[in-house]
Amino acid sequence: MRRIYLITYDVCDAKRLRQIFKCLRGWGDHLQYSVFECQLTDADLLRCKSEMADILHHGEDQVLVIDLGPAASRSETLVQAIGKPYSAMAAPCFVV
Amino acid sequence: MRRIYLITYDVCDAKRLRQIFKCLRGWGDHLQYSVFECQLTDADLLRCKSEMADILHHGEDQVLVIDLGPAASRSETLVQAIGKPYSAMAAPCFVV
Repeated sequence: MRRIYLITYDVCDAKRLRQIFKCLRGWGDHLQYSVFECQLTDADLLRCKSEMADILHHGEDQVLVIDLGPAASRSETLVQAIGKPYSAMAAPCFVV
Repeated sequence: MRRIYLITYDVCDAKRLRQIFKCLRGWGDHLQYSVFECQLTDADLLRCKSEMADILHHGEDQVLVIDLGPAASRSETLVQAIGKPYSAMAAPCFVV
């Protein structure tokens, strides 16, 4: 069973930022500059967290993984947008 | 009854970014560069969204408001951190 996770990150180095972006692009949708939404099984989540842990500097960077519940029972009002519509970003935008 | 909301933002202009930051600082805890966690009643949420809507340029900026459920029944595993611990940022960090 897949659950929805919102993953947000503060990464202090441009190279690691690119690496985290590339890692998460493989797992889900890029919503905002440093925010992804991923639908993951328990095994996926473990692999995703392990990949990120290998990239991060643990004293400087931070990733938050927020459990938004089962993908199958997703509420229409789970995520509300103000301004631009809520959707995956068309053009990935990250520090190069 | 208060619910927990995660509020993330992509704001394309430094002045509006400062304004959104100041607005949200009045409503909750600053977790990451562009992420706040707020515990809000329904009335609080309406006011908070209205304040943000007045600041944003709706064609350029975006705020996402993610409903994490009732504050009273918060799960220990709702938010997991990799790297730096999950806590309000000691020193607010935003573009000046």
